[in-house]
Amino acid sequence: MESMEQQLADLRQRIQTLEGRAPSNKISMIAFSGDMDKVLASFVIATGAAAMGMEVVMFFTFWGTPVLRDKAKKAGGKDTMGKMFGAMLPKGACEVKLSKMNMAGLGTAMMKSLMKKKNVADLEQMLALADELGVRIFVCEMSMDLMGLKREEIIDYQNLSYCGVAKFLEEANDSRVQLFI
Amino acid sequence: MESMEQQLADLRQRIQTLEGRAPSNKISMIAFSGDMDKVLASFVIATGAAAMGMEVVMFFTFWGTPVLRDKAKKAGGKDTMGKMFGAMLPKGACEVKLSKMNMAGLGTAMMKSLMKKKNVADLEQMLALADELGVRIFVCEMSMDLMGLKREEIIDYQNLSYCGVAKFLEEANDSRVQLFI
Amino acid sequence: MESMEQQLADLRQRIQTLEGRAPSNKISMIAFSGDMDKVLASFVIATGAAAMGMEVVMFFTFWGTPVLRDKAKKAGGKDTMGKMFGAMLPKGACEVKLSKMNMAGLGTAMMKSLMKKKNVADLEQMLALADELGVRIFVCEMSMDLMGLKREEIIDYQNLSYCGVAKFLEEANDSRVQLFI
Repeated sequence: MESMEQQLADLRQRIQTLEGRAPSNKISMIAFSGDMDKVLASFVIATGAAAMGMEVVMFFTFWGTPVLRDKAKKAGGKDTMGKMFGAMLPKGACEVKLSKMNMAGLGTAMMKSLMKKKNVADLEQMLALADELGVRIFVCEMSMDLMGLKREEIIDYQNLSYCGVAKFLEEANDSRVQLFI
Repeated sequence: MESMEQQLADLRQRIQTLEGRAPSNKISMIAFSGDMDKVLASFVIATGAAAMGMEVVMFFTFWGTPVLRDKAKKAGGKDTMGKMFGAMLPKGACEVKLSKMNMAGLGTAMMKSLMKKKNVADLEQMLALADELGVRIFVCEMSMDLMGLKREEIIDYQNLSYCGVAKFLEEANDSRVQLFI
Repeated sequence: MESMEQQLADLRQRIQTLEGRAPSNKISMIAFSGDMDKVLASFVIATGAAAMGMEVVMFFTFWGTPVLRDKAKKAGGKDTMGKMFGAMLPKGACEVKLSKMNMAGLGTAMMKSLMKKKNVADLEQMLALADELGVRIFVCEMSMDLMGLKREEIIDYQNLSYCGVAKFLEEANDSRVQLFI
């Protein structure tokens, strides 16, 4: 009998280990690109997943970071390099461009007009929807620093915080799906 | 004794839950890019995985969609925007270009000639092989709509169907490997 | 009693199957892009993951392969095509360029100077750190062949070996996180 109890305890231990290692019903995405098409794709996936009841985490890094700038906000105290980058990078979701066929803005404008006609939400609407659905946004601190972006120029978004690569890895490790976009 | 039976039932329940959550031996890829090199990479992975006995699912979205056009097929009833996009986008796997060093077509031609010389299958052969190996292809309906593509201009492929983001998430959730290409 | 033993054996079997299918604490990345920003991102993730105790595997393929060239090494016996590609492709980690805003080298130079100022390790330092932390590097043989690269021009790196797509799939299948970069 003793041995039977022992066996059960052993199995229980192994099951507990497996349960601890099983990922959550979660998707983690790295939004690296600042291209309109790719950012759009990441938000279509993010809002779709959230609507299906999945937990969603997005990590904005490098060219993805300026997508989160609020065009109505201003940040002072930038050095020359920061000002130059600030002027060259898109100022928020309404200024991002297509990765292909941008054709000096014509292709991007065509795509935006098409999206309106076909009732596809634009990036600013997607951001609002993601916020409503509880999609969590993390912003890479190293990228903010490299591009001279300040926290006071970032959009208002409920579940937004700043982090490093360790936080991403922690979330990705606990996710069923991970994508680098 | 009763309690022993109870403990066994409890463990059985926990194991069943774990089994239900464990992903299948499957790989899900989003073919977002229409660049020859990236599409080629996705098909090398797809046919390799299928040959190893994995289940393979590819989701063609955005710039990836026109790769599936059949150059011998024509679609009528397009509006002006649809015709413009139709003319600008590559017409199938034989027209896609390198993401880098395209050099007005020279780089792409060099790469194609190299692939032939080195016995690397080209995209059209890859598609036929993928079809034979049972690789499933899903085409994003929103992308088809945005780019004005019609179903009658898509290639003949056995396991091809049209879907939205929910279908991708369902498959990705049940996959061991997921890639955004 | 016999039946109880039987039930335990059955559960043990199911647990063993689950344990066999559970992925290792590992991250597998495909380094497809040769862009400085993307290669940098992959090394930030690689060294971060290794520092956190994860096993890390990087697969260098296509444009990623020339990043591993050693500028101090030379390889003979190349055909014309190989020499042409050799001249056009970046010669190692110090020659890669930004995917955006390269501006004839100015943007890339700005980014490098910024990284120095902000104490972000450059690619060559990242490679050395990755080597030290035991990050394993696999190089795609088909890409080496296509681009006419020879093994004797590849950097010195302890855990570097050459492989095909099957090796990547095997590692990816056993990883908690997979990214295509």
